[in-house]
Amino acid sequence: MTSTTDNAVRAYIEAHREAFLADLAAWLRIPSVSADPARAGDVARSAEWLAAQLSATGFPVTEVWPTAGLPAVYAEWPSGDPDAPTVLVYGHHDVQPAAREDGWDSDPFEPETRDGRLYARGAADDKGQVFFHTLGVRAHLAATGRTTPAVNLKLLIEGEEESGSPNFAALLRDRADRLACDAVIVSDTGMWSAETPTVCTGMRGLADCQIDLYGPAQDIHSGSFGGAVPNPATEAARLAAALHDRDRRVAIPGFYDGITPLTDDERALFAELPFDEDAWLRTAKSSATLGETGYSTLERVWARPTAEVNGIHGGYGGPGGKTVVPSTAQLKLSFRLVAGQDTDKVQQAVADWVAATLPAGIRHEITFWGATRPCLTPLDHPALQAVVRAMGRAFQQPIRFTREGGSGPAADLQDVLGAPVLFLGISVPSDGWHSVNEKVELDLLLKGVETTAYLWADLADNRPR
Amino acid sequence: MTSTTDNAVRAYIEAHREAFLADLAAWLRIPSVSADPARAGDVARSAEWLAAQLSATGFPVTEVWPTAGLPAVYAEWPSGDPDAPTVLVYGHHDVQPAAREDGWDSDPFEPETRDGRLYARGAADDKGQVFFHTLGVRAHLAATGRTTPAVNLKLLIEGEEESGSPNFAALLRDRADRLACDAVIVSDTGMWSAETPTVCTGMRGLADCQIDLYGPAQDIHSGSFGGAVPNPATEAARLAAALHDRDRRVAIPGFYDGITPLTDDERALFAELPFDEDAWLRTAKSSATLGETGYSTLERVWARPTAEVNGIHGGYGGPGGKTVVPSTAQLKLSFRLVAGQDTDKVQQAVADWVAATLPAGIRHEITFWGATRPCLTPLDHPALQAVVRAMGRAFQQPIRFTREGGSGPAADLQDVLGAPVLFLGISVPSDGWHSVNEKVELDLLLKGVETTAYLWADLADNRPR
Repeated sequence: MTSTTDNAVRAYIEAHREAFLADLAAWLRIPSVSADPARAGDVARSAEWLAAQLSATGFPVTEVWPTAGLPAVYAEWPSGDPDAPTVLVYGHHDVQPAAREDGWDSDPFEPETRDGRLYARGAADDKGQVFFHTLGVRAHLAATGRTTPAVNLKLLIEGEEESGSPNFAALLRDRADRLACDAVIVSDTGMWSAETPTVCTGMRGLADCQIDLYGPAQDIHSGSFGGAVPNPATEAARLAAALHDRDRRVAIPGFYDGITPLTDDERALFAELPFDEDAWLRTAKSSATLGETGYSTLERVWARPTAEVNGIHGGYGGPGGKTVVPSTAQLKLSFRLVAGQDTDKVQQAVADWVAATLPAGIRHEITFWGATRPCLTPLDHPALQAVVRAMGRAFQQPIRFTREGGSGPAADLQDVLGAPVLFLGISVPSDGWHSVNEKVELDLLLKGVETTAYLWADLADNRPR
Repeated sequence: MTSTTDNAVRAYIEAHREAFLADLAAWLRIPSVSADPARAGDVARSAEWLAAQLSATGFPVTEVWPTAGLPAVYAEWPSGDPDAPTVLVYGHHDVQPAAREDGWDSDPFEPETRDGRLYARGAADDKGQVFFHTLGVRAHLAATGRTTPAVNLKLLIEGEEESGSPNFAALLRDRADRLACDAVIVSDTGMWSAETPTVCTGMRGLADCQIDLYGPAQDIHSGSFGGAVPNPATEAARLAAALHDRDRRVAIPGFYDGITPLTDDERALFAELPFDEDAWLRTAKSSATLGETGYSTLERVWARPTAEVNGIHGGYGGPGGKTVVPSTAQLKLSFRLVAGQDTDKVQQAVADWVAATLPAGIRHEITFWGATRPCLTPLDHPALQAVVRAMGRAFQQPIRFTREGGSGPAADLQDVLGAPVLFLGISVPSDGWHSVNEKVELDLLLKGVETTAYLWADLADNRPR
């Protein structure tokens, strides 16, 4: 079943794996923590290091792109074929904070290989997954005898993803001409498990806000006034409670308007996954599931919009009791959105609902933070099918489908560049993203290399329109 | 209309007012702040000072009673008449904290008279109101020609009222024999206004608690898990919101069991008061009223039980957004109770309701702080009628009726001593209790003196059973 090309790819990867892993380790030693202003120099150094490495890989164009914040890296390797499709790979070179004292078994910025796993901050999120594209394109050339990739290959590796990508959309808009492409490959996600390789077909969007409620001009005595004036803590609670109806559906009028329903085919594909609810609950650090009636846990986190209370604060929180009607209260809410929901309309619906729900005597202010649109690639999209085929060759088993409950800059790529977004990630849930002992499974990392080695030729043969 | 006795009382008070005020000022200079451990010596000094002053007034028995905390003062002046009723006066000699820097116009512990008002911490709450009993009993003796009071007069002046009276119930139980009485006069309350003298007939009780909710073992990602596991902040909000139904009645099953309904007579008497809702709202620092359907504002704060959210805290409260499902949340609730409600049963009803309301996956703990029982003196009680008559003679106008929405140790007096509790206070809402520029109106203070000068003879003639 295995073709000559596949054998050539594997032989190339095997021959170059040690050098590839040594280079990745060198990059992982750079503590490019975007959230820490004291590490800005390290983030810049990471960008320069990557640009040099991409030049060494063969990319004829490599540039460090400054932003209002921390720099991104751009690289371009034209195919030379005037009919070749253009593919943009997205990833990020910044990492989450990490310190040995947090409970790491080894220094987070001194990579260590144990039991076939490479432990370091950024090993999976996202340096490892960015880096497999370097060996991948070399394997693609070696196996096909080409001197340029079969696609026009572009890479955009951001430096502020772990800080919420505050300057990313502006960068995309400013550089839209250079970034023009037929498809985006995002390598910043994961798979179901090492045993069940999957491709992600979408991410939920996000709209989040803060609602400040103002009642009495100062805390007042609950004996003298309680029961006769509105209490902002009570009203914040009533608002938060009114987010959901008895079936735990979001009860804000208009919230579900326009959503793309989950198809029977998609539900059937979700149901094929070997979902173990007890194991999932352990990951969720929770002891029971609870959500919208009529949907499975996976459907709830991947494919249904939600309203979540991220924080509620009002009144006395110290030891013992204090019999006050508090003066103020604050709610932090986030809404996960799915395909078909419009972030602007959702924000308006929330604002209208808050205004209509609060009683006289409670003044309020609502502040929306930046919204992220949902994105979803149809299962029959040709580029998605190409990714599935390339992964299938690398993993030699059927590739199943997942979605991602979180939200990311993928939607900006989709919207600004007007191209479909595909997710190609090889991380697994145990990789410890944002946690201690982050690692990447070396076998899977090399499957990522192999997948990209097949993908560019496949995309050139089955080009996305 | 004014009797010889009344003229004699007034003449006596007029003759002794300057010395009385000078003595009160000396007491007010002692900063007996019970909440401040560094002032424990001052609280003890205040107790010694008062005991000496009561001896000088003529009380043959004066004692400083130690407690597990700060000392109380006890004094006793037997009538000598074997049929005389026994009356216990309750007040407190500790005060709230105060500092010039808080915004006082003069030193809170250097009394200053301006425009007929004596400004000092404790002037109204409660030293002034305790102290009018000293000149009052002397005026009673002078006007009646007696050498002992017409009643067996006992005073119990607590030293920890502003710290929540943590040792008061124990003191009452330990000293119940000495404190035995036919009626308790509490001089630690106020009147409607200088123009509308009133007597308070009851206080609400109080049960308050803290409910800690535990969800995920740590904060989890709202994108990965949101919408599929219970969120303790949401559940705290749902619990707080479920406290009240649409009519803002408390929705906890059994909460209203056994309450003494407000009679039509009482509602009519409340309605006679010159209530100005706008002025009340200014005092409440609020811009609108809100409460139980079918009741007026005064009925809501005086005569109806309530549920209040004193604090709600869970999840992220810092700047911006943080898309987490929080691990924990906390609610602080207080319930004001009215006559007929049993504090133990209310606590049980709350605990049962919380347990029945929270979903699987949310563990909780509920902690009740000490409860205070409600108390209410029937309008036709003979001792209450005696207080009304004595006040009527002092104020020379009709005395109306109020209640107090707050809660206090009066209920302990009622329960432990088995005697009715009457409220005799001359403070007015503008006196600034617990606030800056606390003061007492000198005219009203002397009306307090005058009232007690009449009261003992009246009570002896119309003794409570």
